[in-house]
This record gives sequence, structure tokens and C-alpha cells, in this order.
Amino acid sequence: MYVVGVDFGTLSGRAVVVRVADGAELGSAVSVYDHAVVENRLPATGERLPPDWALQMPGDWLAVLRDAVPAAVRASGVDPAEVIGIGTDFTACTVLPTTTDGTPLCELDSFRERPHAYPKLWKHHSAQPHADRINALAAARGETWLARYGGKISSEWEFAKALQVLEDDPEVYAAMDRWVEAADWIVWQLCGSYLRNACTAGYKGIYQDGAYPSPDYLAALNPAFGAFVTDKLEHEIGQLGALAGGLTAEAAAWTGLREGIAVCVGNVDAHVTAPAAKATEPGQMLMVMGTSTCHVMNSDRLGEVPGMCGVVDGGIVPGLYGYEAGQSGVGDIFAWHVDNFVPASYVEAAAAAGVGVHDHLTALAAEQEVGEHGLVALDWHGGNRSVLVDHELSGVLVGTTLATRPEDVYRALLEATAFGTRTIVEAFESNGVEVSELVVAGGLLRNAFLMQLYSDVCRRPLSVIDSEQGPALGSAIHAAVAAGSYPDVHAAAEAMGKVRRAVYVPDDRRAAAYDALYAEYQLLHDHFGRGGNDVLHRLRDIRRTAKESS
Amino acid sequence: MYVVGVDFGTLSGRAVVVRVADGAELGSAVSVYDHAVVENRLPATGERLPPDWALQMPGDWLAVLRDAVPAAVRASGVDPAEVIGIGTDFTACTVLPTTTDGTPLCELDSFRERPHAYPKLWKHHSAQPHADRINALAAARGETWLARYGGKISSEWEFAKALQVLEDDPEVYAAMDRWVEAADWIVWQLCGSYLRNACTAGYKGIYQDGAYPSPDYLAALNPAFGAFVTDKLEHEIGQLGALAGGLTAEAAAWTGLREGIAVCVGNVDAHVTAPAAKATEPGQMLMVMGTSTCHVMNSDRLGEVPGMCGVVDGGIVPGLYGYEAGQSGVGDIFAWHVDNFVPASYVEAAAAAGVGVHDHLTALAAEQEVGEHGLVALDWHGGNRSVLVDHELSGVLVGTTLATRPEDVYRALLEATAFGTRTIVEAFESNGVEVSELVVAGGLLRNAFLMQLYSDVCRRPLSVIDSEQGPALGSAIHAAVAAGSYPDVHAAAEAMGKVRRAVYVPDDRRAAAYDALYAEYQLLHDHFGRGGNDVLHRLRDIRRTAKESS
Repeated sequence: MYVVGVDFGTLSGRAVVVRVADGAELGSAVSVYDHAVVENRLPATGERLPPDWALQMPGDWLAVLRDAVPAAVRASGVDPAEVIGIGTDFTACTVLPTTTDGTPLCELDSFRERPHAYPKLWKHHSAQPHADRINALAAARGETWLARYGGKISSEWEFAKALQVLEDDPEVYAAMDRWVEAADWIVWQLCGSYLRNACTAGYKGIYQDGAYPSPDYLAALNPAFGAFVTDKLEHEIGQLGALAGGLTAEAAAWTGLREGIAVCVGNVDAHVTAPAAKATEPGQMLMVMGTSTCHVMNSDRLGEVPGMCGVVDGGIVPGLYGYEAGQSGVGDIFAWHVDNFVPASYVEAAAAAGVGVHDHLTALAAEQEVGEHGLVALDWHGGNRSVLVDHELSGVLVGTTLATRPEDVYRALLEATAFGTRTIVEAFESNGVEVSELVVAGGLLRNAFLMQLYSDVCRRPLSVIDSEQGPALGSAIHAAVAAGSYPDVHAAAEAMGKVRRAVYVPDDRRAAAYDALYAEYQLLHDHFGRGGNDVLHRLRDIRRTAKESS
Repeated sequence: MYVVGVDFGTLSGRAVVVRVADGAELGSAVSVYDHAVVENRLPATGERLPPDWALQMPGDWLAVLRDAVPAAVRASGVDPAEVIGIGTDFTACTVLPTTTDGTPLCELDSFRERPHAYPKLWKHHSAQPHADRINALAAARGETWLARYGGKISSEWEFAKALQVLEDDPEVYAAMDRWVEAADWIVWQLCGSYLRNACTAGYKGIYQDGAYPSPDYLAALNPAFGAFVTDKLEHEIGQLGALAGGLTAEAAAWTGLREGIAVCVGNVDAHVTAPAAKATEPGQMLMVMGTSTCHVMNSDRLGEVPGMCGVVDGGIVPGLYGYEAGQSGVGDIFAWHVDNFVPASYVEAAAAAGVGVHDHLTALAAEQEVGEHGLVALDWHGGNRSVLVDHELSGVLVGTTLATRPEDVYRALLEATAFGTRTIVEAFESNGVEVSELVVAGGLLRNAFLMQLYSDVCRRPLSVIDSEQGPALGSAIHAAVAAGSYPDVHAAAEAMGKVRRAVYVPDDRRAAAYDALYAEYQLLHDHFGRGGNDVLHRLRDIRRTAKESS
């Protein structure tokens, strides 16, 4: 018997066919979204969008069901009749306004020319002023839910984006019956029924201890927002791995799968990867390392950790508290350095050696002893969404001499992100939430030097996922649970997940040397991040003023 | 009537023939030193030199007199009989052991295999431990001369290098009758008589108020060093622009000039440039801007300015206090960035535009408003020999984002060096030594954007020398004074010097914007340079330890 997992990413969706018995991945296919990310002009009208907007088209998501799913089944050689369930994960918070039957407002003729009628992708960042008001008011009123989110609600999440719709296009707001996570919308399309999954309801929807922010609080934000939860948001919650319904005839026709098979409750890409990497037990911190790093971990303790993105009961697996944290810049900082600050001679040497520039710099950096470059960096090039939760911070590099070379800076940047991870791990532990193991997924795990560096810096063994498609495999695992093949996600992960344990273990000598550099990182972190010298904020202001006058 | 000026640089000597009446430069020639800088192996033996050694060969200097001087006269079309004087300037402190008649010890068969018998070039840096002892003891004993050097005697200067000879090769030390500045040795070769010029005697030889450091102090450094001044150093002082003697028959034969013409007292490259740029009046600060920047300025006030390299009575022109200060890294920091941190696309764009990479980056940087890059840097890549006098400091860059580009960092580095200059100017003024005008010489003056930036940052008009060969012109001006054509250096400078006044004047709007960035520079400067966070020193230590274990 088989299940299908479908991972809806930022630019494409990927389907994979997985054997229920052992998690073997038998076939996969990718469907690239026709409209990718809509950032510049609205396709329907050509209207130019304001800065920091990012929309998507629901039709692109359905195309994944029609194209990638059947293609993956064909590639697997599996008889579609033997597929017993389908599970999905999505980027989050990606959210859209719909009618009561789930029709996206943007697909109604009356609203297709209205930007706010379209799904807002996770990286739609123009609701920052709304998020700022949400945070300031919650802090002023002492709303208890705020601490569950490390003290900050993101502009990416459901409430900030909804408040932006209300205030910028009240007609769209009035016309929308539901404000739906894309993760739930796609499940709705598959099984015909709407359930809010426990993951996004908690992490993105401020659903805590069975309740949302109060009408009173919301009305204080904007009188017209007071009924937002009751009118448009609240709905039955589905636990992760639970059955959402049976595949509809229409969806069976799209996918080529049998009508009535199990459709699993929706999920989020990072969180769904935990079972794929067998990281569902308390203290196993999964780090999905790519352009940024997302940390997800279960615990049996409820703690309030500064700067975490959120803690949600059942947010990763039912019955445990799921924690999420993040580093806003990781792989994108390395890429920035390679793209902008590496001379031709290095690019040529890499080509001559038949490797990429990242690999070449890594090989040069790996020849050094810890601390030999004499540098310490702060990894805030994309702000800090870790313990400081301050997106206006920026990067710092300390210790350059005329002998400093590109590989030195590259290594210092690798190290800075590892120090950033250690900062998060220590924030968890000092708040009573134990971290026992680091498990890595994501594109950066192919850099073995980086992995060893993280193990040394964090003084913890480091395990790595043993699959190229963690999220889709995780969705398939959830589908197997929903189909009843396993009693719960832990059991399914044990049978179907794939991890290599303790591939990297810390070296005591290097770890001790990194301790000294980490101590410097901490000093700089607190000086520049906690008001010792507020120069980074002032430089932002200076920059803004300068750009306005140019 | 004409004079010849000869500038002895680090890698070559340059002669120029100048008309006494108006300073017109009529011909010049360069002679490259055969042995350049001896840093790796001693030519006589092939012996490998220790790190941080830098020697030169006296024969290479004499070749300049034999080759470049007659070639310059030929190129000028001037009748050698009409040349009435010759003046010279040298790198400093470049110093050598000689016999009583001026024969370099290294030219004696008994000493040609001994590295310490050779001239030590200014950038011979291995006497740092000796300099450290000189400074610690002087501070402990409260030696009054220490404050005349900003609180630090350099490892480059006469006493540190002599103490190294004594302790590392006592036989060479015992055999040397004189410890002679190359600036004075070359004059000795020209006119047969030895005078210590007031410039190097003061700046490099700790000659203050008519006295050297006491035998008591020197004996406390090392008992065998107690008689150093009386036995080997002290000698008649010659004022700058004074007649040292007449050209000997031998030197006349080398140079093709008439026997008996005026030979001027020796001088130093930066200091001799002041009259060439008409910057000999009190408050006119000459900045010789190249890989590093040397600041020289006259004043009628004696002040003790933190971090200045020295103040010497008659050190630039007789009758005024001459101040010297410096920034250890300027053009070399820009070159470091261009060589190591600029990608191929920029190099190609520069080539396509038919300009150098520096010019290309400058053009891109010039399009920005002040502060638009959001960066502040500290210009300590080569340490700080300005107000902090700390060669173990290193560079800092603050404010990088994923949008930061090579031209942004380049501009931040240009600005950092301007902030470094402003720091020096303010140190002078806050200690009662007025700075009224900045006058620029050196290779960097061709960068008009950089010049305007300095004017804006320092809020002062900026004048530029109008000659390509400032030091040689300055030496020629001194020769004219020594020959009696002018009553003093000021008068000769007025007639023969070349400057364009106030070519750059500060723009109020930009200056105000730079004030905000300079305030940030100052905060970072004091935090990282005055012990707020001693991370730069700790990183040096970590680096040293790491390199030793590698």
C-alpha cells in the first residue's frame, strides 16, 4: 500500500509516492507555478503592486494536483488503486479570502481586479505597520497570548494581513466569508470540507488554549475588526495526522487517485518534516536549513522562550507542545557573500577544480584552525527573528586586517549562523525546555564542514535527514496516519522516517576554541542588539532619510 | 639658475631639475634600486632573514646619484654648469651602522655576512619588543620626552633598531662608530661631512630641547646601552634648508654637476613636501595620501597631542614647531577591498568603461546620497597609529544587509579614512594646535570624489599640490635655500612651490549628514579602541594561538 505526499513550496509543488510499510520513495514529480510569485503587477489588470507585496494564484496550486500527482504515480510504477491516502503541506502563513464554499474572492469577476482579493504569500511583508499596532496594543493590554509568540506577532501572519485587508480594501473584507490558510484551502479542495489545521491555527492564527484574541482587543485595534474571529476566522480545528475527509470525485479526477481515499488535515512544510526526519520526540530539534533556518521541536513542557516564533499545543504532533524558532538569514547570507564579494580568481579556481564557489570557499576555510581568521560576525544581514525579534538590525564584521581573504569572511559568516543557532538552543534551555539532539534537513546539509561546525559550536551530536524530499515524505507519513495504517505520527515516523543519527559529533578541542569566539559573539550580540549601542537602528534611519532625499 | 632635488623612496630614487626662479620642473629621471627591499635572504650569503626584517643596500642609493641625476639633467636640457645646488630627501627612519668615516659596516669584508651590519629600512618591524620596553620604561620613569611622541616610540625609529642591534649582534654594535640616518648618510657622500638633520634627529632620534634620552634611562634599558648617545649617536645638528657643505670632486664626478655647489642638509620625504605644496605656514596641514597618510604641519605653539608621531622644533622648517601624525591604513585598505572583495562583473564593467576598478567603484559610490549605504567602518585594517597608537587593532564594518554591494563597502572605507583624518584634526585642535587648511599631496589626490569627501567630512577647504613629484620638488626648494637664492624656506616655497588653493570646499548639507556618521564612527572608535570591548585584541590573541597550533 502507498500514500502520496504533496509539498506546496514558494515556486512549485512536489508530489511523492511513498510505500506505507517502510517509507520507500518510489516516484516523484514537480509542477512549477505558472505565475510564480506575483510581486510587481497584478496579472488581471497589469496594475503595479506596492513594495513588499507578494501574492499567488490559487489555480497554480490546483495544477499541482492535476499534473504533479499523476506524474509522480506514473513515475513510481504504482497502481493508483493501491494508493490509500494523500497528505499535503504548504508554505505558511499563506492566506486567502474566500466565500462560504471556499471560492477564492479573486476568482469572482467582481473582485478579480482587486489585489486584496488574492492570496497573500508568506513573504508578503507590507502589513508591518499593522503588526506593529497588534504588538503594541497587546503589550499595553498585557494580552497573555503574546508571550506564546516570543513577544512579537509577525507581519506575515493571519491577523496582520487581515487587518491590512480591512483597512486598505474594506469591500474585499466585507465580502469575504472566510480567511483561509492555503494549507487548509488545498485540503478543502481535495475532500470538500474545511478544517483549520492545529499547526497554522496556533502558529499563525493566535489560537491558544482554545481561544483567539478577544473581540474586545480586536475592536481596540479597529472597531470594525472586533468581530473578525467570530465572523471570518474561527472554525473546527483538525489535529495533525487526522482524517479531514475522503477524496472527492472531482479531486479523484484531477489526481487519478481513487475517490474516497483518506485526505489528511493540512500541515506546514517545516513542521511536517519532523516525522520525516524521525524528530518527533521531546528535545529533538529539527533545523530546516536553507536560505533561512526554521527550528521546530516538541516538548512535554510549556515554556515561554524569548524570541521563539511560537509554542502551540499539538503544533507539530498531537499531545506535545510544538515549538518553532527561526534565523532569518543563513544560506542567503552565504550566497550574498559569494555573489558580491568574491573575486574572479576564486571563481576560476573553483571552476578549475570542478566545484562550485561555495564548495571552493568551504574547502579553503576548512584548512584553518578555529579562530585563525581573527574575525567575528553578527548574522543579522536579514534582521534578527531569533531572541531579539528585531528586523531592523543588520550585519557586523569585526577583526578584518589587510590579510583578510574571502574565505576568512565566508568562514566567519558560517560561524555566525552557528552562533545564532546556539543562541536559540541556549534560550530554550535557560527557559526550561531541553534540547537533546539537533537534526538537520534542508539544502545546507550537503555542506559537511558546516554541519561539523554546527556540532562543534553547539556541543551536540548532529543527525541528518536521509531523504531529498523531507516535506513531501512528511506529508506522506501524515497521510498514512490519516488512512489508519499507523496509530499515530510517532509510530508512522518510526517506520517511514529516515535519519542518520549522530553523523557529526562535537570535537572537544574545536568546541573549546569556538567557546571563546561564541563569547565574543554574545558580547557583540548584546551590545548591538540590546541597546548598548543602537547604531544599527540609527543607520537604518539615516539610510531611509538618505534614500528619500535622493 | 637651477637646482636638483633627489627623492630616495622605498624602491627607487627620483631626480628632478628645477628652475630656481619659479620652480618649473624641467626634467626628471628615476633609478630603480637593484636590490629593492631585502626581506627574505641576505644577498651576500643567501641566509634567510627572520620575519619582519627589511634591509637595503647603500650601493643602490649611490646608483641614483650616478644614474638618475645626470639623466635628469640631460632630460632637462639644462647646462650642468648652471646647477647651483642639490637637495635630497629620504625614507625615514632608515638607518645604518658606519665607521667614523661613514663607511657602512656591511661594506667591510668582516661584516658583509652579518644582517645587522646592513641598513634597516623604515619598515623593518622586528624591533617591536625593543620598542615595547623603551615605551614601558619611559612611562614608568615619567620621561618627559615621551609626550612629544604622542606617548609611543615606534619600533621603526633609531633607538628601537639600535637596541635590537646591541642585543642581537653585539659585535656589530661594538664595531659601529656611528648610527646614521640614511637621509644624512647620502648627504655625507655628497659633501664629505656629517650633519644630523633636525628633522630625523627630532622625529626619529628623540632629540628634544637640545638633549637625547639620558644615559641613566638608557642604562636601565640595558647596561651596555647607557653610552649609546655619546658613543654613537650625537653629532652636530643641521637645520633644514641649511648648507651642509660643497659637492665633493667624487660626487661631482658621479652626478656630472660642478664640484663645490651647495649640498643641502638632509630631509624626509613627507616633511620636504610641505614647501613644495606651499604648506609651511602655521595651521596648514599637509596630508601625503597614499597607501598610508602622513600629516605634517607647522605651528607656533608647542602642544602635546595624543597619538601624534612627534612634535619637533624646526622639524619641518626652522623656527616653527613641526608636527607629524599618521594613519597607518588608507590607500592600502581601498586596494585590499578591490583586490579581494570585488567580483568579476565589476572588473568587466570597469574594463568596458575604460577605467580602473577603483574609478568604477568610485563612480558608483558617488551616485549615492551620504548615508544611503547604511554602513560605518573603522579604518584599522593596518592598526591605528593615530590617536590610539595601537597596532593590534583591526577593522570593523557595521550595518551590512543582503542589499549591501561592493561600492557600498568601498565608500564606507573611503569615509572611514576621512573620519580618521577628522579624528586627528580634532585631536590637534582640542589640544590647542589650530588646523586652518588641509593641503593634499600623494597619489590619492587624483580621486576627486575622495577629495570632496574629505573636505565635507572635515568641514575645511582642501587644497592640492600642483606637482607630480612633491618630494623631489621640495628637495630642490631646500637646495635653492642652501645655495643662498632665497632667505628661507618660506620665501623659496612662495616662489617655487605649487598649489591650487581650496579646490574643494565643504558642502553644508553633505557635511551635516557626515556629522551624523562621524558621531557613529566616534562611538565605535572609542568602544573598540579604548577598552569598551577589547574584542579586537582578544581576536589577535586567538589568531596567534590558532596559527601556532596549525
